[in-house]
Amino acid sequence: MSGYVRHLAERAREAAVQIALLDGTARARLIERMADALLQRQFEVLAANEQDMERGRADGLGGAVLDRLRLDESRVAAMASALKEVAAQPDALGQVTRREVRPNGVVIERQRIPLGLIAMIYEARPNVTADAAALCLKAGNVVLLRGGSEARASNAAIAACLHQALREEGLPEAAVSLVSDPAREHVLELLQLSDLIDLAIPRGGESLIRFVAEHARVPVIKHYKGVCHLYVDAAADIDRALALLVDGKTSRPGVCNALETLLVHRDIAPSFLPRALAALAQRGVEVRGCERTRLLSAYAGVDVQPVEESDYAAEYLDLILAVRVVDSLDDALLHIARYGSDHTEVIATEDAAAADAFVRGTRSSAVMVNASSRFNDGGELGLGAEIGISTTRLHAYGPMGAESLTIERFVVRGEGQVRHAESRG
Amino acid sequence: MSGYVRHLAERAREAAVQIALLDGTARARLIERMADALLQRQFEVLAANEQDMERGRADGLGGAVLDRLRLDESRVAAMASALKEVAAQPDALGQVTRREVRPNGVVIERQRIPLGLIAMIYEARPNVTADAAALCLKAGNVVLLRGGSEARASNAAIAACLHQALREEGLPEAAVSLVSDPAREHVLELLQLSDLIDLAIPRGGESLIRFVAEHARVPVIKHYKGVCHLYVDAAADIDRALALLVDGKTSRPGVCNALETLLVHRDIAPSFLPRALAALAQRGVEVRGCERTRLLSAYAGVDVQPVEESDYAAEYLDLILAVRVVDSLDDALLHIARYGSDHTEVIATEDAAAADAFVRGTRSSAVMVNASSRFNDGGELGLGAEIGISTTRLHAYGPMGAESLTIERFVVRGEGQVRHAESRG
Repeated sequence: MSGYVRHLAERAREAAVQIALLDGTARARLIERMADALLQRQFEVLAANEQDMERGRADGLGGAVLDRLRLDESRVAAMASALKEVAAQPDALGQVTRREVRPNGVVIERQRIPLGLIAMIYEARPNVTADAAALCLKAGNVVLLRGGSEARASNAAIAACLHQALREEGLPEAAVSLVSDPAREHVLELLQLSDLIDLAIPRGGESLIRFVAEHARVPVIKHYKGVCHLYVDAAADIDRALALLVDGKTSRPGVCNALETLLVHRDIAPSFLPRALAALAQRGVEVRGCERTRLLSAYAGVDVQPVEESDYAAEYLDLILAVRVVDSLDDALLHIARYGSDHTEVIATEDAAAADAFVRGTRSSAVMVNASSRFNDGGELGLGAEIGISTTRLHAYGPMGAESLTIERFVVRGEGQVRHAESRG
Repeated sequence: MSGYVRHLAERAREAAVQIALLDGTARARLIERMADALLQRQFEVLAANEQDMERGRADGLGGAVLDRLRLDESRVAAMASALKEVAAQPDALGQVTRREVRPNGVVIERQRIPLGLIAMIYEARPNVTADAAALCLKAGNVVLLRGGSEARASNAAIAACLHQALREEGLPEAAVSLVSDPAREHVLELLQLSDLIDLAIPRGGESLIRFVAEHARVPVIKHYKGVCHLYVDAAADIDRALALLVDGKTSRPGVCNALETLLVHRDIAPSFLPRALAALAQRGVEVRGCERTRLLSAYAGVDVQPVEESDYAAEYLDLILAVRVVDSLDDALLHIARYGSDHTEVIATEDAAAADAFVRGTRSSAVMVNASSRFNDGGELGLGAEIGISTTRLHAYGPMGAESLTIERFVVRGEGQVRHAESRG
């Protein structure tokens, strides 16, 4: 261990005291200034991004990664407007969430306070640098950011804008600390700092998440993969189910709330599947199907590859879909329990009892009844901007907004009350 | 790894499906039956406890440990009545905590679901076996219990009563699984089971907590030590402050919400400290004081040992108190930030501004204004029974009741809504 990350974390922890004492207005103003600085200095940010893109092309990065890495004027504008939205959100801090007067007269309040120092470990997309910093600060936290090496110039340029805003407000730059050397040994060092870091949020692919899970001594909330299912029940409305399928699979296949597996009740399969397979083929989706799916596809003249068991656990993030015909709702639930990732599950049904059984029978972060999997998103669920979608069933489950970056504690006010009467002189 | 704990955890995980589907009435009835079984079979439990006590005496366990280990008829009755109270609490599950209709017509609800499989790792006190099982089941979870070796016969006898109740309700005994071989290698195995265990709660001393923190691959909420402070402000009412001191230090010195350090503003020290030191001496409390404390104690004719820096970080759990005179409220906050354990802090003051500054300036799980530290307890704070007091600033902070053993997830109900209009056929 070089001590490099410990040094950064210690400085961030010192800055935390000042940030925690800011009121809601000052925190909002700081985040607005950050948005302004990004817009003022956008050409610096774009020039830095061009360096990353050149190096990425030279290193042979794939098209999807390059697309996530790329910034242009409209993407910088979107980043700035996301910050303005965060600034404008209601303040989660200092709220009294519950209040009770006890029989002995003490008044008990529950109050939200910041978590403290949050470490964000992420990949490719440079906008996470601005989003994560803004959400952490909104909730009174400080943040240690470790982005991917492919975006290092972009992240440094964005951080420079955020630092300018901190300076303008007379606040320490260390409130947003960037681990500028992206070597993985620094992530390892970071994950050991249990005396300094209150929460680490890894957001990325399997290799990153495994590395963090393996080495973390600090509390971790994972933002892991979405193996999301659509179950088309015997009592589904076929047109609705088709729309949910097409939206879930094709509207943005590269994101975690996209569908990866379609489960179809055997009774509706003959009427639903041929139309579904045709709609998917028309949109360029490769289908990998079970035996019964393939029989129906042959009948409908559509090409379907045989599915392997590994397909059921796959997060394709691409125009590929696994399809399985099941005998019952219970079998659909068993499939989800076995292969799912606790992210998002959808049922298409007009039968209220089936919908309730599906909701009760899954423990994913979001269950949708006749609504698209793509709604599992902070903005769509009314939380505003999100730092990501938690797949850890602790503290926060599903999209995490600023409120999820706080914790409730107890404030008790009395007039000298004690537990044992003899304690009085 | 023997695979012994993995096998237990897999069986518990299977039982979780059945437990999660019980309604609130069935869960309450199960816990009441557990209380009944404990009362019916109390002589078995007491006989087993006598074995543990004999072995403990032979092994030379200290008086405090033996006292925590010891059961008698009234302690078994208290255990049973604690279970009845848990059974009678409002049901935390299935509650819709928030509901919103979005502009597109989808209805978004947040709903509490169980965490799943909770592993409880604890020491000495056998009542934790019954309490933890009841609280986990109340919230729809299953539990893996690993108590201390010194209580193994008592824990097995209590678990037998809990299993009888599960059988009577037609439920699998594996819902409450006891790691009956207390070897520490089994704790190590347990802490690696990240595919099976949703949360581990260690509750015990420094050695246990360090071992868990070092080896855990599963999410952990620590129930760690309480280095609790009373700060007597310049504007304190001296009689009130004395009552808070005596209650906090002497009403039950062996528990985590007892006071360990007294901080006194220099302006009030000459009038407060001599009386405080006399009251402590009268109750057999050994005081370790700073230079200024010792000057005042000599003046008052009371014996005070010099304090060492290590005293400020100590959780004595005994009739010992560290005392320091500070120059200001800010210095008191700096002392707490440096030596505290985020558990409970108390201010005695009649100055509302000082009280607010103290509340804002600490990040402990409970802050008390003119109220005893001993109120940081689930029962006193209105939560009912508690599984312990979390010192981890994530998910739950402070006393954890049944509600803290659940997580909110999203349920979205629509009529076929999609994110991209083109998804409609």
